[in-house]
Amino acid sequence: MKNGTRDGRLAVVSTDLSKAVYAEGVAHLLEALENWSAAEVSLRALAARLEAGTAGGVFAFDPVQAMAPLPRCYQWLDGSTFANHGALMERAFDLGITNEYEKFPLVYQGASDDFIGPCDDVELTSESDNMDFEGEVAVVVDEVPMGTPKERAAAHIKLIMLVNDVSLRALAGREMKTGFGWVQAKPSTSFSPVAVTPDELGDAWVDGRVQLPLQVTRDGGWFGHPNGREMTFNFYRLIEHVAYSRRLRAGTIVGSGTVSNAARSAGSACIAERRAIETLDQGGAKTPFLRFGERVRIEMSDTAGRSIFGAIDQRYVKRGGT
Amino acid sequence: MKNGTRDGRLAVVSTDLSKAVYAEGVAHLLEALENWSAAEVSLRALAARLEAGTAGGVFAFDPVQAMAPLPRCYQWLDGSTFANHGALMERAFDLGITNEYEKFPLVYQGASDDFIGPCDDVELTSESDNMDFEGEVAVVVDEVPMGTPKERAAAHIKLIMLVNDVSLRALAGREMKTGFGWVQAKPSTSFSPVAVTPDELGDAWVDGRVQLPLQVTRDGGWFGHPNGREMTFNFYRLIEHVAYSRRLRAGTIVGSGTVSNAARSAGSACIAERRAIETLDQGGAKTPFLRFGERVRIEMSDTAGRSIFGAIDQRYVKRGGT
Repeated sequence: MKNGTRDGRLAVVSTDLSKAVYAEGVAHLLEALENWSAAEVSLRALAARLEAGTAGGVFAFDPVQAMAPLPRCYQWLDGSTFANHGALMERAFDLGITNEYEKFPLVYQGASDDFIGPCDDVELTSESDNMDFEGEVAVVVDEVPMGTPKERAAAHIKLIMLVNDVSLRALAGREMKTGFGWVQAKPSTSFSPVAVTPDELGDAWVDGRVQLPLQVTRDGGWFGHPNGREMTFNFYRLIEHVAYSRRLRAGTIVGSGTVSNAARSAGSACIAERRAIETLDQGGAKTPFLRFGERVRIEMSDTAGRSIFGAIDQRYVKRGGT
Repeated sequence: MKNGTRDGRLAVVSTDLSKAVYAEGVAHLLEALENWSAAEVSLRALAARLEAGTAGGVFAFDPVQAMAPLPRCYQWLDGSTFANHGALMERAFDLGITNEYEKFPLVYQGASDDFIGPCDDVELTSESDNMDFEGEVAVVVDEVPMGTPKERAAAHIKLIMLVNDVSLRALAGREMKTGFGWVQAKPSTSFSPVAVTPDELGDAWVDGRVQLPLQVTRDGGWFGHPNGREMTFNFYRLIEHVAYSRRLRAGTIVGSGTVSNAARSAGSACIAERRAIETLDQGGAKTPFLRFGERVRIEMSDTAGRSIFGAIDQRYVKRGGT
């Protein structure tokens, strides 16, 4: 929760997302992740008291007052693990990507110093940069030793959350051609109000994938509901890949990349992919990129229709002068 | 200084690097950077007392006991701002980089969760990954607003230090071809024992460049002494570039990339560049990449021969089992 500090204040939120209580003995989530085995016990106990109605200091949970679960952390790695998305983008736009898709997941290193809260504005410079969103799932790990194989990766996944990987498409192509990856094309990233432990997903967390549809709307209109089950490389393999030559310190976030399905009826979780489909199917991209003032909403519900992470629901606005 | 925590304990070091004293009222450097205007006053006062011999609690400074000045931070961006290096690499190895060099500096986003101390071992997995070093200069900034122009960047540079940008060349090409930048090819990065304020460099800090030779040795033998003055894009332009679409939070590190000079007599600050020169001048690369057990030393002295930052002096070793 927002409290005027850079890391916020850690609260435990009820399963129905209606109420919350501040954690005791731990200031913020990053601190909890650095000492997770102890912190988890007390946080789970507090969650049980919250659900049972026996916790003190309970308050109504307002996602507008939430920061990203980790308002900042020390490392953010984002994959592109849905082969369907990569194939569409490559076929439509001839990006010149060379990757041995069957062997290696695509991953870029993102900036982790300044994440955006779920309902906070995304402040950007210019519509001509072709502002986009990317609906994704991400996991948060504890300490992952260098060389951790995928078989041992599951135990390191402590939390799961949703992402809006804010992207500037007009800048992306130039940066990709350098081979150095994205800097200007990837502004600060947004996250869902709540991060949940994997067990909260029940049967939907299978083999390192969240097998539920991601609901994406643009200015209130349906944009897509692709299901996480079509993730080509799962999170275990992704962690193995990024921990090959270095350890990951506690609180590192690893993202799935844009959720994407082969069925056209699933829609898309980013504008660029819809434009790719339009280019391939209709001979040209029709859907415009975002204008200032537009809203993006990214949410995921369980099979009973209950929102799991709360919604990322934010406006893109023009940044004020510096 | 190492104290068993992830951020270490902040010490002020004498100009001759012989002695040090722990800072009071601030735990570590990242905390100081987040409140620099206040912290700088007390740190400078402590430094003055240390030099005058009136500080209490003075101890002998041992770089072996030093962590990186920032053992971790929230963002690490590394440029490739010496056009000479890029041109050599491109001509020798045909990397397929497309960049409008006259307009845009090359920059990649690095991992900032796990920096290596100046005398600590660089633990890696396999010699066949072609282990290399890269001698660089880096600056540390305070809060940089989005859209900061180069004309306003100088005031945000609070500290300067040296870097060993540890690189795995066998993996670099594949990752560059994806356009997503480096993940496996850039393991954890090492930094000099001491970070200095720009004024400590005197006349050598000119127009956002450190105009001094970087002394690089491999296993005790001269490898190069390229001068920072040939930096094509200076640090001001580099900061403008990376802050185009996002702000940089306090403690962000921005690196120069491998220091490189046009004169062959300057040698190189990384093996890959020497191999490029051998390829171009002698028809083939002769210098091998690092073997486990080899040492790399990176240091910079002022015109009087005094070491400014202390030395990065470390062994590359094979990582133990996980």
